[in-house]
Amino acid sequence: MKLFPYFIPFLFAIMSPAAELNVMPLPAQYSAQPGHLTIDGHFHIAATGYSEPRLDRALARFVDRLTRQTGIPFPEALKPGAAATLTIRCKAASKLVQQLGEDESYTLTVGDGGAKLDAPNPLGVLRGLETFLQLVVQDSRGFGIDGISIEDRPRFPWRGLMLDVSRHWMPVEVVRRTLDGMAAVKMNTFHWHLSDDQGFRVESLRYPGLQRLGSDGHYYTRSQVRDVIAYARDRGIRVVPEFDIPGHTTSWLVSQPEIGTAPGPYQIERHWGIFDAALDPTKESTYKFLDGFIAEMTKLFPDEYFHIGGDEVNGKAWTASEHVQKFMRAHGIQNNHELQRYFNRRVQPMVKKNGKRMEGWDEILDPDLPKDIVIQSWRGQKSLVDAAKQGFSGLLSAGYYLDLMQPAEFHYLNDPINEDAASLTDEQRSRILGGEACMWVEYVTPLNVDDRIWPRAAAVAERLWSPQNVRNVASMYQRLEFMSRRLEMVGLKHRENYRVMLERLAGTDRVGPLRVLADIVEPVKLYERGESREYTQFTPLNRLVDTARPESDAGRNFRYAVAAKNWPAVRRTLLMWRDNDALLRPMLESHALLKEDVPLSTNLKRVAEVGLQALDHIEHGGPLNSDASAVLSDAKKPVAELLLMAVPGVEALVTTAATGAQ
Amino acid sequence: MKLFPYFIPFLFAIMSPAAELNVMPLPAQYSAQPGHLTIDGHFHIAATGYSEPRLDRALARFVDRLTRQTGIPFPEALKPGAAATLTIRCKAASKLVQQLGEDESYTLTVGDGGAKLDAPNPLGVLRGLETFLQLVVQDSRGFGIDGISIEDRPRFPWRGLMLDVSRHWMPVEVVRRTLDGMAAVKMNTFHWHLSDDQGFRVESLRYPGLQRLGSDGHYYTRSQVRDVIAYARDRGIRVVPEFDIPGHTTSWLVSQPEIGTAPGPYQIERHWGIFDAALDPTKESTYKFLDGFIAEMTKLFPDEYFHIGGDEVNGKAWTASEHVQKFMRAHGIQNNHELQRYFNRRVQPMVKKNGKRMEGWDEILDPDLPKDIVIQSWRGQKSLVDAAKQGFSGLLSAGYYLDLMQPAEFHYLNDPINEDAASLTDEQRSRILGGEACMWVEYVTPLNVDDRIWPRAAAVAERLWSPQNVRNVASMYQRLEFMSRRLEMVGLKHRENYRVMLERLAGTDRVGPLRVLADIVEPVKLYERGESREYTQFTPLNRLVDTARPESDAGRNFRYAVAAKNWPAVRRTLLMWRDNDALLRPMLESHALLKEDVPLSTNLKRVAEVGLQALDHIEHGGPLNSDASAVLSDAKKPVAELLLMAVPGVEALVTTAATGAQ
Repeated sequence: MKLFPYFIPFLFAIMSPAAELNVMPLPAQYSAQPGHLTIDGHFHIAATGYSEPRLDRALARFVDRLTRQTGIPFPEALKPGAAATLTIRCKAASKLVQQLGEDESYTLTVGDGGAKLDAPNPLGVLRGLETFLQLVVQDSRGFGIDGISIEDRPRFPWRGLMLDVSRHWMPVEVVRRTLDGMAAVKMNTFHWHLSDDQGFRVESLRYPGLQRLGSDGHYYTRSQVRDVIAYARDRGIRVVPEFDIPGHTTSWLVSQPEIGTAPGPYQIERHWGIFDAALDPTKESTYKFLDGFIAEMTKLFPDEYFHIGGDEVNGKAWTASEHVQKFMRAHGIQNNHELQRYFNRRVQPMVKKNGKRMEGWDEILDPDLPKDIVIQSWRGQKSLVDAAKQGFSGLLSAGYYLDLMQPAEFHYLNDPINEDAASLTDEQRSRILGGEACMWVEYVTPLNVDDRIWPRAAAVAERLWSPQNVRNVASMYQRLEFMSRRLEMVGLKHRENYRVMLERLAGTDRVGPLRVLADIVEPVKLYERGESREYTQFTPLNRLVDTARPESDAGRNFRYAVAAKNWPAVRRTLLMWRDNDALLRPMLESHALLKEDVPLSTNLKRVAEVGLQALDHIEHGGPLNSDASAVLSDAKKPVAELLLMAVPGVEALVTTAATGAQ
Repeated sequence: MKLFPYFIPFLFAIMSPAAELNVMPLPAQYSAQPGHLTIDGHFHIAATGYSEPRLDRALARFVDRLTRQTGIPFPEALKPGAAATLTIRCKAASKLVQQLGEDESYTLTVGDGGAKLDAPNPLGVLRGLETFLQLVVQDSRGFGIDGISIEDRPRFPWRGLMLDVSRHWMPVEVVRRTLDGMAAVKMNTFHWHLSDDQGFRVESLRYPGLQRLGSDGHYYTRSQVRDVIAYARDRGIRVVPEFDIPGHTTSWLVSQPEIGTAPGPYQIERHWGIFDAALDPTKESTYKFLDGFIAEMTKLFPDEYFHIGGDEVNGKAWTASEHVQKFMRAHGIQNNHELQRYFNRRVQPMVKKNGKRMEGWDEILDPDLPKDIVIQSWRGQKSLVDAAKQGFSGLLSAGYYLDLMQPAEFHYLNDPINEDAASLTDEQRSRILGGEACMWVEYVTPLNVDDRIWPRAAAVAERLWSPQNVRNVASMYQRLEFMSRRLEMVGLKHRENYRVMLERLAGTDRVGPLRVLADIVEPVKLYERGESREYTQFTPLNRLVDTARPESDAGRNFRYAVAAKNWPAVRRTLLMWRDNDALLRPMLESHALLKEDVPLSTNLKRVAEVGLQALDHIEHGGPLNSDASAVLSDAKKPVAELLLMAVPGVEALVTTAATGAQ
């Protein structure tokens, strides 16, 4: 009993570029080859060369996923003996603890005779298996892969995703499926933001008060942490823990007020923002605590890097503290920034003596720190370049903040090595290790976290893996759509939970008109969320703004249709939008959570009317609406923290009409 | 970019009966009360009276689910102190091992002042919490419950669901979410069909060959079994294991050929049907084996009942065996049926001496067995009545076979106590303990198992819980639709996986026209599946017949619309069906798995054309199509094992046109 929801996108599809290889990230090199490999119940794998239990598990997972993708059981796939459909040759072991810069290359050839996957180590095999799965499609012959030859390797060695689990708790299942998604797009570093003002999320044996008083009971046990690390390693992913100090530490100070600058008592922070609480950098007891803490946590987390945060220290507690001021005077410390440098110089050797390298946000950049630390830039590419010039390695996160609700295109075109890097020598440039997409979770719950990360993170993954000149946005969006569905096959819930949230808002599964509205809005951008409402950790995140996707495909497709002058598609869409308000209004008015969206629905109708008039003018020379610009400028204003993404396309339409172009 | 997929169902909704209490199963007694309880962030529970860890866990789950349903975090819900929104009073403990016939009653009152849930034991609390969750809806005031008073208790003590995990392996996750669904609809018995010709699915310590050679590596470890039992107990569900003997035992005999009738060797059966392999009832070694096996398994499974199967023994192996024939002559055993009786009489004491009651399918009915056994009738209500007359307890499964693809209505109206029971005394009638929905999995995988069970099992659950006179089919369907969405909130995947399977068939998420077709077809009924194709355990179940739902809502809604003479809705639907073929054809022809559905799509178009002509006649007196009956009778034939459910409604329309009714 459905009309044709796919009808219009299908028409848009014809405007897309010639189909590129439908793999994401796009391999470094590939070429079509003759032949075709059929995937049927006789599919069989021969694994030769180096073997290890991790590879066996990877192959078992691979076969399960191939079954899920095709619906074909493969009872013989891993049994010895039969002729191989896929021959895997793994040359040697990789490092026991996965290291930055390990070889991840592989070659994959597919033809009539079967497929061959060669890699120097298990990491390359893991990457190649993901590519293989993406290549399998159904056509009139059945499931299979067209002949191809691929030589692939990543552009950057550090391709990460950061997940904040402090501001809203993210259960282990969320972490696990996030790792599955990362592996599918060949990301190799999971940056686990484990503590912040709003929660301390790891079990400490040495300081159990941290989780007991700082987590509301929501923390990962040590055994869960070990499981996650093993799970990540199985997928070729490093796990870098972050314990953010000396700021962002309110949750620590609930149990450890004695190492805070102000006397306390402290309570877990429930609001969002930058807070005054900070460790006291002048007390030896602070360093004694940190020495013990770092010793414990560096043992729990095997990765070579240990992230100490270091961002957004506002210094107010230090300025207000008499004894801190006295200490600064006594030690000739000029300002709070210098005081944080002093703190970092005390902390770095603690990290080092446990065999680790220190990592921190760009605020920790300090020429006097050893050059083996890593700077994560959230403030811009320039600080990355500055760091590289000073001899520091760094990675880019500025431009990769997924929580800021920017389109995939924006992140995709944000290159770690951009014009700022022009002045770097090759050696300096090699210090730019890659980047990390970041997911801060002030406005994110386990129900919408997938939707906030995926599929946009796949665009970042391609930026960091594929050659620099791979930057065709239309091709990226085309492949992203396929990738989005494949990510769901891996276990992510970004598509399912969108529907679940819409149905929760509506109280029914008849969400058609609500979905029409939800599909064409986007949450406000950057840091605008929360400017018009007060949020705490306990504010329900169950409104349309929490449901709407960061990027409206409907809005983008409409803009494309206007640009392509596909007037029949443009008209159908505008008619649908115009008529939606009447269908949706009763639902909006009878549901407390939806009432605030009434003006949004009205705006959609008005904007569509403006668009239809412009279209009539273009097609039949009808009169132009003199109110158009007022309507459009009104509809641009956020309503219920949502932006109406029909506006840009209609604006373009009105411009086309006004300039008389046909 | 969607047209209005919900548009038509919305119109149908107006024909539904006045909204009954939106709870499933419908409570025994209830009445509206003044007042309204708001559910917001201050929601708080006070649990008084008897307490136990199981109840604590139930409350934690309850709060999580309430959050999932509303999006509201309830940080204070379980903390002591605050004024209670929901006061729970549990009088006393229930049995350590849940017993058949334990009290499951509860009372629930909701008003301005809060909600009160009273129950004699934790089982009643569990049932009442499910009702509470179903009552919560959003209206213009927010989330809440309208005032109500409920006194509820089940009609039958045995309300079960049987899941076959032998013919296709069902991982523990499937079992777990099935238990969650059962709890949501107040079912209390999980019947785990653990062995059959095609697989032996439990780890045995005493006879490890059973799982080693009989399971393809797909079996539950003892620790997983214990976890499932604990998980079920937490939800007020008994777990009754079934080990089907003496037939259906091919998988056992792979490792234990010496207890088989034929000499072997045996291999795991890969086909479907009734096979000759049977335990040898004449050898003492068989009973020695079973004595050890039953001793082990009755310890692993704590429930009082132990199911020995006993169905479908074709006796061919016995007839063909010289030594069996000799034994029968020596013991005066007349036929194979008598021989099976002899076998059962040897087995029953083994079950008994381990403190259990024996259960079996209706074939085991034997006046000479002790009266404490339970007969599960799969062949009809009559055998249940016969058993009751002979003093045996029994439960009904005939009419509850969900794998036969019958509509919810059919199962719903199938009462364990029907006209056959008219001749029973009250005491005899009380021996009818309830029923069990059965899910045999020849054509079922973990991907579509939810869809095959749910939501139809909820209709069976209501039959077994609610008063006998609750049998309004329209009300049932209306509530089933809500229940279906709620079951998804519990974790079931029947709705999600439908989409996943459609998208897999299509290779894209633009599945609109494919979904139009899928929505209006149903798999063939009863035992027709497999008649036109050969299936084995390894046959991919990835076609449209594996995706299409057992019952087409679109077909039923269309029939309702025709009956209600809702001509505008009827026309819209017919136009959609008529035009769908052109949109869908390119996809069907370019996908190997979909090619077989081309005639189905053509039939839908033809049937819609016949319907439109009939409608034109009704509305405008247009000419009637003389080919109508040929088209319809052709379209009734299964295509690719699918039935076109547009036919019945169009037939009704043609009849209406022909009889001149307006």
